[in-house]
Amino acid sequence: MQKTPPEQAPDANPAVPRDRTSARRVALVGFGTVGRAVAKILGERGDGDGLLHLTHICNRNFERKKQPWVTERWFPTDAVWTDDFRAVLNSDADIIVELIGGLTPAEELVRGALNAGKSVVTANKQLIARHGPDLLQLASANGCQLEFGASVAGGVPVLPALRTGLCGDRLHGIAGILNGTCNYILSRIETDRIPFSEALEEAQARGYAEADASEDLDGGDARAKLSILALAGLHVRVSPGDIRARTIRPIDAVDFDYAAELGCTIRQISRADLKETTLFADVGPSLVPTSSPFGRVQKNLNLVLTSGEYGGDMAFLGAGAGGDPTAVAVVSDLMFVAEKLAAGSSSVGSGPHRPLQLASPEVSCDFETPWYLRFLVKDQPGIIASLAAILSSHQLNIDAVLQNPGFDKSALPFVITLEPCRDAQLHPALQEMSALPFALRPCLCLPILR
Amino acid sequence: MQKTPPEQAPDANPAVPRDRTSARRVALVGFGTVGRAVAKILGERGDGDGLLHLTHICNRNFERKKQPWVTERWFPTDAVWTDDFRAVLNSDADIIVELIGGLTPAEELVRGALNAGKSVVTANKQLIARHGPDLLQLASANGCQLEFGASVAGGVPVLPALRTGLCGDRLHGIAGILNGTCNYILSRIETDRIPFSEALEEAQARGYAEADASEDLDGGDARAKLSILALAGLHVRVSPGDIRARTIRPIDAVDFDYAAELGCTIRQISRADLKETTLFADVGPSLVPTSSPFGRVQKNLNLVLTSGEYGGDMAFLGAGAGGDPTAVAVVSDLMFVAEKLAAGSSSVGSGPHRPLQLASPEVSCDFETPWYLRFLVKDQPGIIASLAAILSSHQLNIDAVLQNPGFDKSALPFVITLEPCRDAQLHPALQEMSALPFALRPCLCLPILR
Repeated sequence: MQKTPPEQAPDANPAVPRDRTSARRVALVGFGTVGRAVAKILGERGDGDGLLHLTHICNRNFERKKQPWVTERWFPTDAVWTDDFRAVLNSDADIIVELIGGLTPAEELVRGALNAGKSVVTANKQLIARHGPDLLQLASANGCQLEFGASVAGGVPVLPALRTGLCGDRLHGIAGILNGTCNYILSRIETDRIPFSEALEEAQARGYAEADASEDLDGGDARAKLSILALAGLHVRVSPGDIRARTIRPIDAVDFDYAAELGCTIRQISRADLKETTLFADVGPSLVPTSSPFGRVQKNLNLVLTSGEYGGDMAFLGAGAGGDPTAVAVVSDLMFVAEKLAAGSSSVGSGPHRPLQLASPEVSCDFETPWYLRFLVKDQPGIIASLAAILSSHQLNIDAVLQNPGFDKSALPFVITLEPCRDAQLHPALQEMSALPFALRPCLCLPILR
Repeated sequence: MQKTPPEQAPDANPAVPRDRTSARRVALVGFGTVGRAVAKILGERGDGDGLLHLTHICNRNFERKKQPWVTERWFPTDAVWTDDFRAVLNSDADIIVELIGGLTPAEELVRGALNAGKSVVTANKQLIARHGPDLLQLASANGCQLEFGASVAGGVPVLPALRTGLCGDRLHGIAGILNGTCNYILSRIETDRIPFSEALEEAQARGYAEADASEDLDGGDARAKLSILALAGLHVRVSPGDIRARTIRPIDAVDFDYAAELGCTIRQISRADLKETTLFADVGPSLVPTSSPFGRVQKNLNLVLTSGEYGGDMAFLGAGAGGDPTAVAVVSDLMFVAEKLAAGSSSVGSGPHRPLQLASPEVSCDFETPWYLRFLVKDQPGIIASLAAILSSHQLNIDAVLQNPGFDKSALPFVITLEPCRDAQLHPALQEMSALPFALRPCLCLPILR
């Protein structure tokens, strides 16, 4: 191979430092953890290899954020600080980076930018989960770009892979560990068999969970991400609200004991399978084999598995959150958009292959799967007989009964596993069983994924 | 979310079926396993969602390949069959898919296509490993595209991820299990403790290894792939010939026994670490923890890990070979190129961020690492003492000595592990030890990766 030093090929280098006038003008809206990390990376990478020039930073009370270590190290002296995002919309910025989060005023900002012919890079999962298809249409109609690689799994480049290296496949399934908070809590209970409440407090103390962690624990966060993965990978429109989300709150240390007897552990799994015109989708705690890729994901990592007709199964693992990893996804999208704009390809239909014609399947959570049922009862004779009679009357087959010794008889946890059946078939039996007088709580019901 | 059926937005769908006249004309050169799979996927996906139109199939003795089930199911009736690739160069094809493999005549074809302003998609690892930087320059100078996503790890979309979702990071390390043949053989020895020769024969019988498997076993295949990953991810030029490749042929069942005592197994690992102006690179059998991502890769799967300054570690796992998975990578590249051409962005510098200004680092295999040394000796008193004296005279510290009972004393395998030291420090000691009279073979020396 020739070892020609790059200096000898001066005219053949289209991608690296241009003078700043040809760089795209970038406005950052939202200057929290991710926004600061984006500014840092752009600064340290020399304006993203000369493709980008940060011209605006917009944040409420920006004076508080405008510290010398930020401005001197990373920002060109001509960058404008403002707290008015409408001023950014009226500016000469080419690309708006939306890092506000939530729907208001992020939606107004993004629609305004696209309508003004500005491209948008966003990390906003709620916005894309709810309005992604419409916003992609709007971007296309206005000849600009909309990228949202940071909206799912932080720095794990699964969304970019779906629109590039996997676009030639026909995917029929996506599953993932998409919420680092849940995975942190569940793997802490797994490791030290601490109570759920203690694991949650620890996650909050370490900054892995918010004071109100409902969005994470109850699956709202994960189902928004699943909806985006289904859009990008399965080319379907599915509203997050149409995906069933089950909470991880009832999971306790004893469930990891019983799961271990089945060769399993427990993870919050988000999964979507497209079968003809139905999208089977579910988010919630599930039993997975301890030795499976899902079972081995520890701490707050994210894992996404895709299943394709031609390419088979692929796995993507990495840091699903954090300022720097998420900022990598944002900066990557920025460089991608800047390259496109530099190439003059702002016409409708330019860009990565991402069909805008989306199917709108029926959404169902009626997977056929084996089940783990954990009861908490006041012990008395005849419990198993009563439960078995109900299950039998619904044509449900028991696979195993697990009852470990050593528990207080007044609050006895034990487990029945069922052979594969549909959710809809199981549900009425669950209601009958939970109404029995010895049941202290509704039965905890988890799918067993093999 | 609105459930507007797609029919109500007829004018806003740039990506899906256009009439064939606007589709890009694609010539397939090389119609083996991958070529046929590409044709099948294009046919079944309706010409890649209407972006592509297969106009030429070129292969030696094409009459043999031109079977009714191929032509009727997947090909437009106007597709031209030829055995003359120069005729393809002179045709009106927009994109050439090079699936011949090897350097001759693939290099002539690819250079000819780029010089004629035709874009190229290739799966040719040898060509890209040796001439990738030059060919990228040539593509850029001619305003056309060169994509090679299928050249490494088959269907695993690591190359597309490097140029899209990870381009905003600054990577400093890439490591992978890149050769499915070696991984199949090593995991077969691991599972059933069969001799190397038997595992190789089995791999050949199942079609996982060629009759002459030297390129696979001795690391030639993997170092070409590592060179491409270093180009795409670390932005360096490195000739495959400059990367040390160690063979897996001396590995035998006993090594898995000793490795297991260290909590490890053995895999062919390809790794490249960029430190300032030096690229540390090595391909060959290595000890990896059984519980690590590398240790868990079974059969002929591929795994690639990337390490970035901002995003940390990412892992990509999937089918590294096979007609269909490799064809997914080719079709994905084709759709990517077709989208770019459709957007009119054939100008210099369009496209994904891929710097053409490449560093040309020194290449070294002088990693600092702990080592596994396996000796095969004719047993006699004083062996350990002799070896320990040599190691000590080179300031090398022994970590452990492992000698399992039950072996024939006339050919006794035993192991010494060393604390971390540099390859260059170890090498002279190895030579001295292998020259000792009781040594039946040169010592097998494997790095231990933690």
